[in-house]
Amino acid sequence: MSNQDYNKMGTKKFLLQEKDIPMAWYNIAAEMKNKPLPMLNPATKKPIKEEDLYPIFAKALAHQELNQTDTWIEIPEEVRDLYKVWRPTPLVRAFGLEKALDTPAHIYFKNESVSPLGSHKLNSALAQAYYCKKEGITNITTETGAGQWGAALSYAAKTFGLELAVYMVKVSYHQKPYRRSIMQTFGAQVIASPSMSTKAGRKILTDHPTYQGSLGTAISEAVELALSTPNCRYTLGSVLNHVALHQTVIGLEAEKQMEMAGEYPDVLIACFGGGSNFSGLCFPFIRHKISGEHNLRVVAAEPASCPKLTRGEFQYDYGDEAGLTPMIPMFTLGHSFEPAHIHAGGLRYHGAGSIVSQLRKDGLMDAVDIPQLESFGAATLFAQTEGIIPAPESAHAIAAAIREAKQAKEEGRSRVILFNLSGHGLIDMTAYEQYLAGDLSNYNLSDAELKKNLDELEQII
Amino acid sequence: MSNQDYNKMGTKKFLLQEKDIPMAWYNIAAEMKNKPLPMLNPATKKPIKEEDLYPIFAKALAHQELNQTDTWIEIPEEVRDLYKVWRPTPLVRAFGLEKALDTPAHIYFKNESVSPLGSHKLNSALAQAYYCKKEGITNITTETGAGQWGAALSYAAKTFGLELAVYMVKVSYHQKPYRRSIMQTFGAQVIASPSMSTKAGRKILTDHPTYQGSLGTAISEAVELALSTPNCRYTLGSVLNHVALHQTVIGLEAEKQMEMAGEYPDVLIACFGGGSNFSGLCFPFIRHKISGEHNLRVVAAEPASCPKLTRGEFQYDYGDEAGLTPMIPMFTLGHSFEPAHIHAGGLRYHGAGSIVSQLRKDGLMDAVDIPQLESFGAATLFAQTEGIIPAPESAHAIAAAIREAKQAKEEGRSRVILFNLSGHGLIDMTAYEQYLAGDLSNYNLSDAELKKNLDELEQII
Repeated sequence: MSNQDYNKMGTKKFLLQEKDIPMAWYNIAAEMKNKPLPMLNPATKKPIKEEDLYPIFAKALAHQELNQTDTWIEIPEEVRDLYKVWRPTPLVRAFGLEKALDTPAHIYFKNESVSPLGSHKLNSALAQAYYCKKEGITNITTETGAGQWGAALSYAAKTFGLELAVYMVKVSYHQKPYRRSIMQTFGAQVIASPSMSTKAGRKILTDHPTYQGSLGTAISEAVELALSTPNCRYTLGSVLNHVALHQTVIGLEAEKQMEMAGEYPDVLIACFGGGSNFSGLCFPFIRHKISGEHNLRVVAAEPASCPKLTRGEFQYDYGDEAGLTPMIPMFTLGHSFEPAHIHAGGLRYHGAGSIVSQLRKDGLMDAVDIPQLESFGAATLFAQTEGIIPAPESAHAIAAAIREAKQAKEEGRSRVILFNLSGHGLIDMTAYEQYLAGDLSNYNLSDAELKKNLDELEQII
Repeated sequence: MSNQDYNKMGTKKFLLQEKDIPMAWYNIAAEMKNKPLPMLNPATKKPIKEEDLYPIFAKALAHQELNQTDTWIEIPEEVRDLYKVWRPTPLVRAFGLEKALDTPAHIYFKNESVSPLGSHKLNSALAQAYYCKKEGITNITTETGAGQWGAALSYAAKTFGLELAVYMVKVSYHQKPYRRSIMQTFGAQVIASPSMSTKAGRKILTDHPTYQGSLGTAISEAVELALSTPNCRYTLGSVLNHVALHQTVIGLEAEKQMEMAGEYPDVLIACFGGGSNFSGLCFPFIRHKISGEHNLRVVAAEPASCPKLTRGEFQYDYGDEAGLTPMIPMFTLGHSFEPAHIHAGGLRYHGAGSIVSQLRKDGLMDAVDIPQLESFGAATLFAQTEGIIPAPESAHAIAAAIREAKQAKEEGRSRVILFNLSGHGLIDMTAYEQYLAGDLSNYNLSDAELKKNLDELEQII
């Protein structure tokens, strides 16, 4: 079906009704032929048991984390009701972008930016807050990079009456004051990380007084606070299996919407930080690859400054900087890797989760790395043609989609591209201002820096 | 139908499909028994003719401005196609807010904040840019207060390939740098007003070097630039009849959605600056009042610092500070009124449009004025219960809705309230930060200041 046919149909958005919000999350671990390697207890180096996770996570979430048997996990009614605040989200045919690229490709995006908090993060925030509340937990902690996760969790915590402390990566705390204020408007306590409020923070500040923080460090602080506070648990916005699980509502909706559009994607693209929006869009489609029903290409778009999937090593590594978390089998740049201060704060993370890492090993997905300037060029073109200013993170997916669309043009044949617009960038305008003024750099990771980090990593494990 | 029934139905949002986007705008002027008084040519003091407006506006818009005969005006296909970027917008039952207020009232809001530019302004921006393009105009100018209109028009101008210059009220230019960057991302030129680029701006800067600007001044500058630039026209985001006309898609959609909800509003509420979102939601419902079909109450919520409808006088006055526009029959505080620097920049305007002013005179609508602190208290409660951080402008409508809901509780009987959420406040977080820190004031207009302004007004006319 050509562009013109679509225009005649007058359809741009493919919209579902509230009743179409999925009833269950999709647990890809249950269907993977090669299961991900187990996480290891950092003390014993033995595989983690569910009970090992109880001090850190709500029990239900610990159970979901290790569940490799149930393919479908029912979404609690309370969570599904709250999804109705903004879900289902639209699937959009990007006619404007296609026209600007003069490409035969059909470009679709799943628009998760319509969440009132501006990103996909609410899908898991509401679920995690719900299970904590249900188990009588009163306080939760978390970390946030760009602030998308922290903003979402702040609303979720308020909704379920939980007290929340957020460690926000220091560079973002200053770069993105609006997101900090959003969290505070929802009643959360926000602390710039590294901070003096934890041992992990104090150690880093002593060793590196000017350190501007990383997700790894903020996780260390949040975990430490959770372990040392009564009736408190830690929550995480990415990387872990249960977070990926909650995000699968994205792909499950998109699957139905591509059916409405009468097409099936040849290429699926999502930006990649810890993997939450990527897993959310892609796992339900990779299921068709596992079953042999479809053979689409699945592409993670990561920043060239933090390229764990394209250039990292598959290793057991810690999820945080201080080594407080279980050891995770992951493609990693090393847990002490200090990512450059790119504006896509949500992509500044050293490793990929265990499921994604296994899928990558098994050739079920690809990855590309995108320089910062290319991402903002793509973001600006997208804004001008589709009207939505994308989050700097999502801009990486757009850049990868544009590469695909250009290639389709060169080859002179169509292809169906679906990417995830994980969030909008209305609170990241400082980044756009700097881009328009020519003040941004790429910060691509050099070979020397990469080698240094990987050498250190091998010494650790 | 009780709350509980709705919860059982599991419906929170009432969603339309793209095919339900209205085919025509509703022109209330054609159905008003008492027509609004004519606008006057400032030179001749005679009623404005359509041709008098051609140097300022596109001809089609000038025609719409004075059209008092056609009740329905067809929406051009190109505009309707672009409405599909985000329309239809949801109608939402605010269960969370109802619960927090423990009120028997049913509270609904029309969620115009889902526009990618964050407000209802795009409804008219796309229409105005379309007509300008169609008539071969290459350059357009405008003013913007908080930046919502400027942001919307920047995207619209880019979409239709028009060059755009925006005069942004100086206080907002500095308070809201993100909105400035949004306009620049879409390729618009943004100038802080008052500026040295126009006679009107230079005069004000000479007389009041520290003046922080107002919508009235910015309009003077934008009109002057349009009149002195070849193939250029001025566009306006509010006040005028053709802007109100384009915004009626809001109320026309809401009408269908209230039918889906099985209720009819007892009270309709929208915040009021120049009248664009108010007219958009309310005119299609006032039509039921004019026809005698329904007897709902219609309430404009204006800031207590700029209360033209509650405390202003009905007079002929200029739309701008320098007196370049036609003279409009309006409830006004005087075109040289300097509104306090409240954060609801979009409500800092001295007058109401001619249709709204006539409706007010005829008792077809009411108005209330809301102090700034009450508006932010209401906004914070709304955010915490509904997940959406509202624009400071929209917060005035929320505050008025909360007053109604509390009154319903006192009286112990239900009432159906519908308000317009004209935009989100994600780019206004500085205001929330100051509110949370206790740094905001009310700036209610004093009787003495009001009298001074109205006395000056009577000398002018």
